Amino acid sequence: MDRHRIDELLSVYRDGLFNDTLPFWLDHCVDRECGGFMMSLNRDGTLLDSDKGVWQQGRFTWLLGELYNNVEPREEWLELAEHGIRFIDQHCFDPSDGRMWFHLTREGRPIRKRRYAFSEPFAAIAYGELAKATGKAEYAEKASRTFQQFIDHNLDPKGTEPKFTETRPTKGISFPMITIVTAQELRESIGLPKADDWIDRSIEVIRRDHMKPELECVMETVGLDGSVIDHFDGRTLNPGHAIEGAWFIMQEGRLRKDDELVRTGSQMLDWMWQRGWDEQYGGILYFVDLHGLPVQEYWHDMKFWWPQNEAIIATLLAYHLTGDSKYAEWHTAIHDWTYAHFPDREFGEWFGYLHRDGRISVPLKGNLWKGPFHMPRMQLVCWKLLEGMTQARPFSDNQ
Amino acid sequence: MDRHRIDELLSVYRDGLFNDTLPFWLDHCVDRECGGFMMSLNRDGTLLDSDKGVWQQGRFTWLLGELYNNVEPREEWLELAEHGIRFIDQHCFDPSDGRMWFHLTREGRPIRKRRYAFSEPFAAIAYGELAKATGKAEYAEKASRTFQQFIDHNLDPKGTEPKFTETRPTKGISFPMITIVTAQELRESIGLPKADDWIDRSIEVIRRDHMKPELECVMETVGLDGSVIDHFDGRTLNPGHAIEGAWFIMQEGRLRKDDELVRTGSQMLDWMWQRGWDEQYGGILYFVDLHGLPVQEYWHDMKFWWPQNEAIIATLLAYHLTGDSKYAEWHTAIHDWTYAHFPDREFGEWFGYLHRDGRISVPLKGNLWKGPFHMPRMQLVCWKLLEGMTQARPFSDNQ
Repeated sequence: MDRHRIDELLSVYRDGLFNDTLPFWLDHCVDRECGGFMMSLNRDGTLLDSDKGVWQQGRFTWLLGELYNNVEPREEWLELAEHGIRFIDQHCFDPSDGRMWFHLTREGRPIRKRRYAFSEPFAAIAYGELAKATGKAEYAEKASRTFQQFIDHNLDPKGTEPKFTETRPTKGISFPMITIVTAQELRESIGLPKADDWIDRSIEVIRRDHMKPELECVMETVGLDGSVIDHFDGRTLNPGHAIEGAWFIMQEGRLRKDDELVRTGSQMLDWMWQRGWDEQYGGILYFVDLHGLPVQEYWHDMKFWWPQNEAIIATLLAYHLTGDSKYAEWHTAIHDWTYAHFPDREFGEWFGYLHRDGRISVPLKGNLWKGPFHMPRMQLVCWKLLEGMTQARPFSDNQ
Repeated sequence: MDRHRIDELLSVYRDGLFNDTLPFWLDHCVDRECGGFMMSLNRDGTLLDSDKGVWQQGRFTWLLGELYNNVEPREEWLELAEHGIRFIDQHCFDPSDGRMWFHLTREGRPIRKRRYAFSEPFAAIAYGELAKATGKAEYAEKASRTFQQFIDHNLDPKGTEPKFTETRPTKGISFPMITIVTAQELRESIGLPKADDWIDRSIEVIRRDHMKPELECVMETVGLDGSVIDHFDGRTLNPGHAIEGAWFIMQEGRLRKDDELVRTGSQMLDWMWQRGWDEQYGGILYFVDLHGLPVQEYWHDMKFWWPQNEAIIATLLAYHLTGDSKYAEWHTAIHDWTYAHFPDREFGEWFGYLHRDGRISVPLKGNLWKGPFHMPRMQLVCWKLLEGMTQARPFSDNQ
């Protein structure tokens, strides 16, 4: 990756963040009447559904705080982060049990709570950025408490009817993965005590139970003892998800200067790139079967935006940390395919849901799951990574 | 539809049932070791997953009993229907609350129960056919009781945590639709008392709350008062499902010689054909939005086998009952498109999951949802319908 390519990519990510992604959402999603953000937007930013996803309230509030704290202290960003956190405070927790909702009306009335607690980590990192930006202890305390609720509910769900019986207990990679990135964020924003412990424990779980050297694979779902479950759900791999986990672990290796962690993360990337990269059309497939058998989930071969975002980060970070030119090649492959298919040249931002061959499935820009998170995080992380590479490029192979 | 076409179609359906669909499943799905049927089969009939879906146990048992009672009293079919009902009796009910499971291991240990009770109607019609075939009062009693459990749980779910809060209560068309067809089946097999009442009440709900003349649409999900809910889920239409409901109602009109019911069903078909038929590629789309906006479900534009099956029945029945040549044209369009894309010429039976343009998404033949039901039911219903048309063709327009 030569200096010219680094400069070009740096401006694609940075300028994309400031001139495309942020304006699209800031122009269209802020609800001045009822608070919070309305993310279910059509291609041109018009509203498709006024309901509010709780994940997206926390995620966008986090992004705004992150930008304010780590990029530039723009008052607009802080004001909007406070706007987001007010809505979270007022509407996103169920007072009856303290757990967070998943789906609300525009006015903040609850529609749905999930069995699992994944609204909590996004709210926790939003509180963390607000604590750092304002110095208010109240936000730090809420960040820490909401993180603990996420941990507690995932380790020992209470008050919810389980989806499955005890016949074949399973566990997913989401919990350790999200624990890692949430603890990383909260360590940075509020100096979360025991963040390193949670990260170590989570990496240990992934290494011991989800990474399978004999299969050259990272399993999405395993038995409680890490066993492979030879049924549809147990065989279903989510390569983009495992690749996201791979860069969380490489990032930890980078921060700690721990080569063993970098090797773990790059090993995960190697295995899941082989499984997820679509040799026929390009891009990362959504689901694949461990043994190449048919997958039961209907949208298995679609190309969603976020697995591409995570693979762009992971390949760039792996290249930066190892200097192995194959990662530069993979980064070029995934970056080029993604930028050829996802950006909306007419109305800005990205489409989220493409068919396997890159044709658009639906033109919407947001819904309960897609909002300003994976894409701007990729733009921010890759921009900053490339900025670092222009200053110190330990492994640059072509300069 | 001339005599030559009728004869040709008649043999496609009848011969397909006896020479293709039934042999595929009978050769591969019968579990002589643990009982019941294993339906998660790959393209060539090899096992993908030994787990058992409870819907499929009831559905295949019903089919075998239906064939024994109404086509030919083959001992093999009765023996296998008894094989199926034994597994249902032994493993498919939760003794703690009497409700049925949704997903079991091969041995019959429970994996999952759903919040809703749709295993029950399929088991009820299976018991009904066994009652008719064997004359055993025990089966008739179980058929009647299991139907009542379906009704009771749907009207007043007990012991389950609701998926949504009370903020925006909704109801779906599944409950009245499945009530109609289940009551029709049980009226025929066991003379279910009050079958006509349940059918009348269900048709009334569909007419009053789901049919929207001003929108020319059958709504899949509405508010409790039949109001249109202008959010993603409320706007999502399922044309194949509504078309299935259309033929249940036309069938009732046929049995009762009630033209008004035939008009209701054919009106539903007219509206939903306009919404679901894919002008670009052919076939019935899975989901479309009421206003043509993007749909949130990822697989919205795929072509599943069963909406095509239901549209093939509905168009043929509408043609038979009304003599309107447009239905013969629609039947030709859907029949020809479906038979050009779904049958597996190499290993028999049909693929279930195609992309919008007819390419195969996964080659599997069965899973928790796909088994020997919609397709053999279509083959049986259409064969018998065409047989009737060769004897009395009140509206034949081209003979």
